[in-house]
Amino acid sequence: MGKRILVVGGVAGGASAAARVRRIDEYAEIIMFEKGPQVSISNCSLPYHLSGIVENSKSLVLMNPDSFKKRYNIDARVNTEVIKINRKNKTITVKDLVANSIYEEAYDKLILSPGASPILPNKVEGINKPNVFTVRNVEDIEQINNYLKENSVENVAVIGGGFIGIEVAENLRLAKYNVSVVEFANQIMTPFDYDMVQILHKELVDHGVNLVVNDGLAKIGDGFIETMSGEKIAANAVVLAIGVKPETRLAEEAKLEIGETGAIKVDSNYLTSDRDIYAIGDAIEVYHRLLHKPTRLALAGPAQKQARTVADHIYGKTNRNLGVIGSSSIHLFNLNAASTGLNTRTAEVAGFTYDSIYIMPTDKVGLMPNSNVMHFKLVYEKPTGKILGAQAIGKGNVDKRIDVIATIIMLNGTLEDLKDLELTYSPMLGTAKDVVNHAALVALNQLHGQYREVKVSQVRELVENDACIIDAREKKEYEAGHLKNAINIPLSEFRNRLAEIPTDKPVYIHCRSGQRSYNMVMALENLGYTNVYNISGSYLGINLYEYFNDLVTGREKIVTAYNFN
Amino acid sequence: MGKRILVVGGVAGGASAAARVRRIDEYAEIIMFEKGPQVSISNCSLPYHLSGIVENSKSLVLMNPDSFKKRYNIDARVNTEVIKINRKNKTITVKDLVANSIYEEAYDKLILSPGASPILPNKVEGINKPNVFTVRNVEDIEQINNYLKENSVENVAVIGGGFIGIEVAENLRLAKYNVSVVEFANQIMTPFDYDMVQILHKELVDHGVNLVVNDGLAKIGDGFIETMSGEKIAANAVVLAIGVKPETRLAEEAKLEIGETGAIKVDSNYLTSDRDIYAIGDAIEVYHRLLHKPTRLALAGPAQKQARTVADHIYGKTNRNLGVIGSSSIHLFNLNAASTGLNTRTAEVAGFTYDSIYIMPTDKVGLMPNSNVMHFKLVYEKPTGKILGAQAIGKGNVDKRIDVIATIIMLNGTLEDLKDLELTYSPMLGTAKDVVNHAALVALNQLHGQYREVKVSQVRELVENDACIIDAREKKEYEAGHLKNAINIPLSEFRNRLAEIPTDKPVYIHCRSGQRSYNMVMALENLGYTNVYNISGSYLGINLYEYFNDLVTGREKIVTAYNFN
Repeated sequence: MGKRILVVGGVAGGASAAARVRRIDEYAEIIMFEKGPQVSISNCSLPYHLSGIVENSKSLVLMNPDSFKKRYNIDARVNTEVIKINRKNKTITVKDLVANSIYEEAYDKLILSPGASPILPNKVEGINKPNVFTVRNVEDIEQINNYLKENSVENVAVIGGGFIGIEVAENLRLAKYNVSVVEFANQIMTPFDYDMVQILHKELVDHGVNLVVNDGLAKIGDGFIETMSGEKIAANAVVLAIGVKPETRLAEEAKLEIGETGAIKVDSNYLTSDRDIYAIGDAIEVYHRLLHKPTRLALAGPAQKQARTVADHIYGKTNRNLGVIGSSSIHLFNLNAASTGLNTRTAEVAGFTYDSIYIMPTDKVGLMPNSNVMHFKLVYEKPTGKILGAQAIGKGNVDKRIDVIATIIMLNGTLEDLKDLELTYSPMLGTAKDVVNHAALVALNQLHGQYREVKVSQVRELVENDACIIDAREKKEYEAGHLKNAINIPLSEFRNRLAEIPTDKPVYIHCRSGQRSYNMVMALENLGYTNVYNISGSYLGINLYEYFNDLVTGREKIVTAYNFN
Repeated sequence: MGKRILVVGGVAGGASAAARVRRIDEYAEIIMFEKGPQVSISNCSLPYHLSGIVENSKSLVLMNPDSFKKRYNIDARVNTEVIKINRKNKTITVKDLVANSIYEEAYDKLILSPGASPILPNKVEGINKPNVFTVRNVEDIEQINNYLKENSVENVAVIGGGFIGIEVAENLRLAKYNVSVVEFANQIMTPFDYDMVQILHKELVDHGVNLVVNDGLAKIGDGFIETMSGEKIAANAVVLAIGVKPETRLAEEAKLEIGETGAIKVDSNYLTSDRDIYAIGDAIEVYHRLLHKPTRLALAGPAQKQARTVADHIYGKTNRNLGVIGSSSIHLFNLNAASTGLNTRTAEVAGFTYDSIYIMPTDKVGLMPNSNVMHFKLVYEKPTGKILGAQAIGKGNVDKRIDVIATIIMLNGTLEDLKDLELTYSPMLGTAKDVVNHAALVALNQLHGQYREVKVSQVRELVENDACIIDAREKKEYEAGHLKNAINIPLSEFRNRLAEIPTDKPVYIHCRSGQRSYNMVMALENLGYTNVYNISGSYLGINLYEYFNDLVTGREKIVTAYNFN
């Protein structure tokens, strides 16, 4: 007779753990309890039903109880809520939500994978209206879709600019709804720094999404919402996506230890404070490899690894636990965006001594038709050159570059390692000097003081203070649009125009993407100029950073409800 | 007065070295000598002019001498051949090919970047005909293009199935020419193993390319070529791409040391045996990080790194030299293919103790519309689990996965490291358990003897010897096409049909992509079966491997001139 393994929660982590136990032990008795009507759903894909990219909501269900039984001999019980853990007897109390009956099941090992539930805002008038939704399972997304269609809804408000909120907003917009996104912070998508995220802000606005930042939901009225600042936004339906909280009720009531982040505390093998109870997924806290402290990370990849580790550990095999770094990606209209590790905000909060560089090379050989600019930001520790994190946004395969950085971080690599990587190249797929090699070279120059730069976020102040800004692009490029107050001295002319470049005050140089200005900065340094700075992000970056402002002349200004603060 | 730096060769490495010298030293006098009429061309992009993907051949020239002068204050002399190095005087003898004059230039440091030239086959009748071409520079590609158009050529033969040959063949085919590829070896694209390359063979054939392997060029006739086996193939033009040889004449005549591979020998900073002469690019031999010996590697990425190292070294800065691993990629019709490090052939030749796994997961969440199967092969050392190399082929971003492997290799990572990588994921861009994580898990299972597999190349013998092969797919899948002699016991039924599975002889199991058969193998092992093997590559892999054969029933057979041996 095999072990009796009970699993609470049949999505992502739970289902993975159950399947892995079966592969290790054909004799184990495995029962999986799921409160909802489905197990093994593709929860990350839920938003794509709203646009019809995933047309049939049934395809979001990857396996049903019958196939769990047939393939894995796993007893998957849906509509079945585990309401209590009786640690002393090693049993759980289970409620069959359909039959409305209660029974007990004994376990040798118990695996908790209850997930996290959407946070609902406090004290918001109208929050209980039938047109207010959250997104957690297939039923939720079907309900939204049905409501919008049956009521011929035109205007939808999404509250919260995290992954779920933005993916929901994108898919609703693709389905031609008028979509507003309301975000309490000054930006959406916190894995990205404020400068990088402007590219995503612009992408939303360019695709007709009404983006409101620095504002929160105050009231849900009839056909509108009202924000904290008093703005009324047309909305016949509201999707709440302001965050999730770990499902800890069962664990708390069983007096399992809860960690400082409010999630279930586990050891390196995901054992809770009870040696027969494991916990995995969104309900637990994990160790952050770079921050050296517990954190919460509601991502599918780590949950799968945890599931495997738990199954292995039940059968005596340990896995090393390297902690998490937080790697994620998103596809948003025409852009891909990805990030890993720390950004400058999280590095700052954690007290790191760090610096960053921001480059924008092409992602493929420039003369290839599918070549596009990639915005790439690299964060590293000073003086060690240890890679702390990176962010990339563009039309091409940004996730490839971020995965390389994630690999470097997991292997404790430095800028030198990144510089030396020998990566694949062909003109249709990349550049001979890959984006990440390029980033490492620029960062090493900066780390070793071989050149200095100012950030794109500092440019406004420079312009307002009448600093000497040189635009190193050719005259035609300058005339098509340029920074206020910038003087135009092309790289191709500067050696004959040195007299125009002051030596008694700081000089800030940019071009289009930073390559020409870098050459000019190096030459001027060589010539004895001691106060020369490259403007990180260059004209492309300034343009994006100040897109909703008027720092740049000559470009077309978009008209939008979005008010950039 | 600055240093006098002379550079021989103005493409790729040479141009990069010159520009880097300028960034380090504004006072240096830099002269770059190029035999051809252009400097700084995108040589990797040359084939794309034949299809019109790069419509204007002038765009293949990235910078001209005038812009080198204006931007970098570099004197780039085209149509200028360096004919002699006078090491004693530290001068070079230069021939102006237009003025037909000869002069000398003195150097403090000399950088050789002469590249490699196409190899011409010996003693082939007709080799000097005007319709026989090679591909090295913009003029070559313009000549081919013009000849084909002016002579209304319909049939073109490409001799050689390496990168250049295949890219030329693809682009000619895209331009609607009838294209034959003749390759002397039994496969094209040697970075790929024989099993993996069948996918590329099929891609060529599927797109109407007449692929001939195991055969060489014997004669170029009028309107046809004749192969060594006597086959006549219609061809009004011939492109020779059987390989390149390093341009060592200058170095040899100057008595610079030549390495065992026949290329210029250099030290860790790319200094030749003369301490004032450096050499970089396709003309030199480099150190292979995994093979621990010199090799030749005609790739653009390493050449750029060498250029930078040389410029730095001239100014007293050393760079560490990690050696090369050989990372490359190619786009071929609808497929992308990439590889890094060693394949099983090179690992075998080098005497490694190694093994490999071959998986074919989807590259994105299966229900996403752009999801496709990715063929992924991982080669690792036994018993250390050190990653030696990988190959990936598919419609999606295979290069992302190979770049991660290249990063792991450069940082001396193992299967454990690969398993633990936390990579980016979103449904439109990847899977929660990334392809590379998945590969590491399978390889670890194999390394630790937790399951055993046979290779796709062994299946034919198993079938012919009436081995017990179980097809674990569902009945409907089996009926649509299956392996000869395979018996169908779906994973969903096997627990009730154990009596049909023999215990007295080896059992080989496959399904569609290896996931279901893996589960069945593990279960049978658990149940006491001692002689159970998973068939690596599974049905998808067998189908591709035996595509030109008849091992599989029920699938549509393509009709092609290609004769699979």
